[in-house]
Amino acid sequence: MFDTHFKRQVEKLLEPAGISINGTNAWDIRVHDNRLFQRMLAHGNLGFGEAYMDGWWDCDAIDELFFRILHNRINKKIATFGLLASSIAGRIFNFQIPSRAFTVGERHYNTGNDLFTAMLDPGMNYSCAYWENCNNLEEAQQNKLRLIFDKLRLEPGMHVLDIGCGWGGAAIYAAKHYGVKVTGITVSSKQAKLAQVFCRDLPVSIKLCDYRDLNDKYDRVYSIGMFEHVGHKNYRRYFKVIDRCLSPKGLCLLHTIGGNEPATCTDPWISKYIFPNSMIPSASQITSTYEGIFVLEDWHVFAYDYYLTLKSWHKNVQRSLDRLSSNYSKRFFRMWEYYLLSCAGAFRARKLQIWQLLLSPQGVTGKFRVPR
Amino acid sequence: MFDTHFKRQVEKLLEPAGISINGTNAWDIRVHDNRLFQRMLAHGNLGFGEAYMDGWWDCDAIDELFFRILHNRINKKIATFGLLASSIAGRIFNFQIPSRAFTVGERHYNTGNDLFTAMLDPGMNYSCAYWENCNNLEEAQQNKLRLIFDKLRLEPGMHVLDIGCGWGGAAIYAAKHYGVKVTGITVSSKQAKLAQVFCRDLPVSIKLCDYRDLNDKYDRVYSIGMFEHVGHKNYRRYFKVIDRCLSPKGLCLLHTIGGNEPATCTDPWISKYIFPNSMIPSASQITSTYEGIFVLEDWHVFAYDYYLTLKSWHKNVQRSLDRLSSNYSKRFFRMWEYYLLSCAGAFRARKLQIWQLLLSPQGVTGKFRVPR
Repeated sequence: MFDTHFKRQVEKLLEPAGISINGTNAWDIRVHDNRLFQRMLAHGNLGFGEAYMDGWWDCDAIDELFFRILHNRINKKIATFGLLASSIAGRIFNFQIPSRAFTVGERHYNTGNDLFTAMLDPGMNYSCAYWENCNNLEEAQQNKLRLIFDKLRLEPGMHVLDIGCGWGGAAIYAAKHYGVKVTGITVSSKQAKLAQVFCRDLPVSIKLCDYRDLNDKYDRVYSIGMFEHVGHKNYRRYFKVIDRCLSPKGLCLLHTIGGNEPATCTDPWISKYIFPNSMIPSASQITSTYEGIFVLEDWHVFAYDYYLTLKSWHKNVQRSLDRLSSNYSKRFFRMWEYYLLSCAGAFRARKLQIWQLLLSPQGVTGKFRVPR
Repeated sequence: MFDTHFKRQVEKLLEPAGISINGTNAWDIRVHDNRLFQRMLAHGNLGFGEAYMDGWWDCDAIDELFFRILHNRINKKIATFGLLASSIAGRIFNFQIPSRAFTVGERHYNTGNDLFTAMLDPGMNYSCAYWENCNNLEEAQQNKLRLIFDKLRLEPGMHVLDIGCGWGGAAIYAAKHYGVKVTGITVSSKQAKLAQVFCRDLPVSIKLCDYRDLNDKYDRVYSIGMFEHVGHKNYRRYFKVIDRCLSPKGLCLLHTIGGNEPATCTDPWISKYIFPNSMIPSASQITSTYEGIFVLEDWHVFAYDYYLTLKSWHKNVQRSLDRLSSNYSKRFFRMWEYYLLSCAGAFRARKLQIWQLLLSPQGVTGKFRVPR
């Protein structure tokens, strides 16, 4: 009886987005446990996501489900569902320190390298690819790196700093294809170790180091998918550190997820299961903290590319399920699927953005066109 | 004796920028009245500019002089000169309401149309041109308009709003080349009258109207060089008005001069002689006021193009001096030259920027690349 009442409420909420309960569309919600509705209404995305992990519901196209919820602004129309929708926009990511994703969850993983190896491109790039004239993930990731390094105008012999280098994929590409020397920093000892293996025989040095401890000078600085972990209270300091480390004639490229409004809350599901202690910046949070330190040279916006990237990662994981299944529980895979596909939907709905900001200490003089 | 003391001070200030008093370089200052130095030190750019108008000094390359002062960050090094340099960065423009420039100055002008006709391209575009693959002003202005309208994805039959339409140059181009219907608004009755003449026989309607009074719906909105007149306290309202007037699937292009830091003061010379009551926005002033209303689609930065544009305008005025000289005093021409060339130097030094922001109410879904 109560369940029926809650079900009707949820149905009414989802109706404007064309989503039905137990309907025949791929994005409809197939409910296996009617306690779902109360859990959704009471706990927003945390309840919705945990119920998915618990197998209370299924959906053939979770990305489309989230796209429809967010694109149709259900959050703007109905207060109760706003919790779910707005929390997705305020989602918490830290793609550069993925090991943290594994300190939480139902069981403990030492590294999860098997999962990431299966999911990512061979270059192990754990950030949005750039799908311009590309048909597969590996090409699109290399395309993203070329885009970044062309914007930075890398020249042979330059010394380049990579803040949040992950497994070293970008640093390796820059050293190999642009003839530069790269120093990459990460705060994950496991990433550092693996990156050092990948980078041997190349002019790439990987350091276990917090960005605040940087003091050397570099010709160029880039940071791909690390800013999401800085936290808005540290943005000013982050930019000051880059300014300290960057040649006056240098360039800095910041590649980050962006949100449409200043973040006020953290999505509890993402925070609990995927990326704790992270924050998606808004445009005003970025601009107000670099002003007076840097001059804006370009602000490139894309979002659909992350939808394609996340869908591609999801496909790769699905393809390797058999091989991975001995190391992870079924519940873990449902959690991972919910993470990849709900985010895919949020990027497609433009609740989340990918931003590439090109910054310079003094403004590049003369004719200067930033490649796209 | 005092003059010698002040002269030494000024020489010391300018030395790091390679600027000499009575030197042989084109950017050196040739002093005709030694009271100049005290006037500069006491009144910053107001004193420097007025002294130029009064014929106390000359310089063969005022744009290069200003470029050197700003590029070499004299303002960061020396407090007294900071007034001049930082005030240039905080300059006050309102290119869309040029009639105001003529309410001040040593004599009164009814319209100044002869001056603008001589100075501007045939399309009467009083804003920064885009010199990509262009060699002359007319081409570069049309190139700028194509850039804007391609970014806006204009399609035949659309109804487009031009906020701050000037003499209608952009509206005419859009109607002729993109098959759209344009409504242009201006607060200058003289501009409106002339624009109405230029636009007859085209689906362009020019209205004498404040942007805050707009209520109709449009498929696209653009605003070229008008935002500088809005004032930061009105930015939120400005964006709300555009949101009210824009179709949910629409796009808005904002073309404005930008400053590297939030403006705290108005350059007294520019304010007194050229553009009163205006304000150059900083990035944080813009982002913090559109957040929650618009999604950023692209932020294009250029500056050198305005240097080229201002130099071109200056050349055009010089070329027409004989013809114009019966209507304007010599002092007026010196004022005008100082305005055009000091700004040219400020853009070249990247103390001032040109920004084109593309905004959408909900975020464009699917693959979306903004042309450059």
